[in-house]
Amino acid sequence: MKDILDYISLIEPVDRSLDGEVQKYLDHLTKPQGSLGRLEEILKEFVRITGKTKPSIDRKIIFIMAGDHGIAEEGVSAFPAEVTPQMVLNFLSGGAAINVLAKHAGCETKVVDMGVNFKFDSSAGLIDKKIAMGTKNFAKEPAMTELELTMAVMAGIDLAEKAVKDGTDIIGTGDMGIANTTASTAIYCALFGFKPEDITGPGTGLDDNGIKHKAEVIKAALEKHSPFDSPLDILMKVGGFEIAGLVGLILGAAKNRIPVVVDGFISTAAAAVTTIAAPNVKEKLFFAHASKEPGHMLILEKLGVKAIFDFQMRLGEGTGGALAIPVIEGALKIYNEMATFKSASVSGAV
Amino acid sequence: MKDILDYISLIEPVDRSLDGEVQKYLDHLTKPQGSLGRLEEILKEFVRITGKTKPSIDRKIIFIMAGDHGIAEEGVSAFPAEVTPQMVLNFLSGGAAINVLAKHAGCETKVVDMGVNFKFDSSAGLIDKKIAMGTKNFAKEPAMTELELTMAVMAGIDLAEKAVKDGTDIIGTGDMGIANTTASTAIYCALFGFKPEDITGPGTGLDDNGIKHKAEVIKAALEKHSPFDSPLDILMKVGGFEIAGLVGLILGAAKNRIPVVVDGFISTAAAAVTTIAAPNVKEKLFFAHASKEPGHMLILEKLGVKAIFDFQMRLGEGTGGALAIPVIEGALKIYNEMATFKSASVSGAV
Repeated sequence: MKDILDYISLIEPVDRSLDGEVQKYLDHLTKPQGSLGRLEEILKEFVRITGKTKPSIDRKIIFIMAGDHGIAEEGVSAFPAEVTPQMVLNFLSGGAAINVLAKHAGCETKVVDMGVNFKFDSSAGLIDKKIAMGTKNFAKEPAMTELELTMAVMAGIDLAEKAVKDGTDIIGTGDMGIANTTASTAIYCALFGFKPEDITGPGTGLDDNGIKHKAEVIKAALEKHSPFDSPLDILMKVGGFEIAGLVGLILGAAKNRIPVVVDGFISTAAAAVTTIAAPNVKEKLFFAHASKEPGHMLILEKLGVKAIFDFQMRLGEGTGGALAIPVIEGALKIYNEMATFKSASVSGAV
Repeated sequence: MKDILDYISLIEPVDRSLDGEVQKYLDHLTKPQGSLGRLEEILKEFVRITGKTKPSIDRKIIFIMAGDHGIAEEGVSAFPAEVTPQMVLNFLSGGAAINVLAKHAGCETKVVDMGVNFKFDSSAGLIDKKIAMGTKNFAKEPAMTELELTMAVMAGIDLAEKAVKDGTDIIGTGDMGIANTTASTAIYCALFGFKPEDITGPGTGLDDNGIKHKAEVIKAALEKHSPFDSPLDILMKVGGFEIAGLVGLILGAAKNRIPVVVDGFISTAAAAVTTIAAPNVKEKLFFAHASKEPGHMLILEKLGVKAIFDFQMRLGEGTGGALAIPVIEGALKIYNEMATFKSASVSGAV
């Protein structure tokens, strides 16, 4: 894990030195002060992250990281594990919800095989970062080895670093992996002390008995693997390759002062691990939406962050981020394109 | 008012006959059933409004209706009345928040003079529907005459009918008028029985004393003009020309089965009058956002509707609608562009 910890040590906090200048300019725009609410907050956060007084968004990429989960053997998902590679192929051919919403938002998508249990044709357009053919069943043994954890996180860092070099201005996180709400729920319980029965949800569509079984599987696994040494230890023992890849992606973006839009339940698990392991990261993230998956709202509260919207979505893939990115762009455009009271000859408040 | 009532009688309810077909198709798309939450609800509402099984949005227009208010004489706004025409000119030259956000969303804007106290140069690109140089001071007399009310509402209907002929697929409502939160608050109190002190807010930025004074002005005016015969009677006595224009715009869109995206506090006052006067209209509206103006959330509850998002905005102009329209478009694209389980060879739930 040393490589990861070394990288974390390079991440600086956000830059608040421009706050005054930005607020002053915002207050000269032709609108009552503060009347654009959250949009103004988003703009100020974006400036702090990037350190640019007039930030703009040109290139936007959503990374959809995919991995299979050994824990799926325990019958914790409404869908069979074969759906992971099937959906990866669907992403590549443009038929999934994230393709539609990313295109609508003008975002590129990049699909990453972090550990799918399928041999893809190398010509498929997929980014190959496969660590293994899925994690081990964490009901029985740690999901991954320490080497696998490091490789997965470093792969995410590598993708972020490449995206930065290619001029990316904002990164969205996306995920695919049958049983990954199970891994995420286990991560949340281990990180925050939630009881599995309190935050375990239907994922792709379990019934009440299915949810109860899933919570029991998580509870037994946590008892088996605890105590945990650190967030990265939790990620290694009960996480997933796509979640570890997202941790790396977030670290790489944060180090390079590129804002990340965190999607829903799975992406937030990656964000939770990252922000606890690397506290300077938290203020560099936007949380797109409150998922319908029970517990997500509680977890956002634990993290002390506020989602941009709540559409009762529970799909993952980065779909929430794809809807949030245009809002963030709108906030930046307000700042960059509006007239001032002076330039528009509009009277101020009396 | 007969012309208005005659027009209302032509408005049909939404069409639920396609619900089953639409739900069935939605459930074949490559995602867990219902997992796109609000987006799926929006799509179904859009189908019911338009009666089209595969609706799409090409042309989108936000109408920014402007009018001055005699009640501004009572010192109920943080900004002077001259700001109404100044902001109209700002809309026309593209420097206001609504210009930036509408452009970002790919929406046209049309600026309508419903009754601004200023003689605009006829070459300015403004749509001239001026009823008078502002309403009368409703602290002293009715804001408008019955003829003025009819003219203002019919002007809005006319604009909607023209937009429909020009192929518009969705209409956003916007407003500008110093003191129009005072008129809107009076409308809400008269329609729903709220006490002015419970829902009067800062508008563009009044302090606590200013809010108290504004509530007292509203209270006295309501006592003076009550009892009210109907929603249109309320609109005539304490409304505004831009609000009456928006009522007409909503009626015209509803009659022609064109969805309307209602913006914040002022637009919702127009929507409230309209939906009570014409109950078949309500399900043809999307409510963009919960405004920061106190009471807006209570009013949305009274109407039994749910805003798409809450960004604590309080600007008006149609800014909330401009942010909501891309979400609605996203919902339609999900439906029209996603692969099905069969077409993408993805396995279903076990």
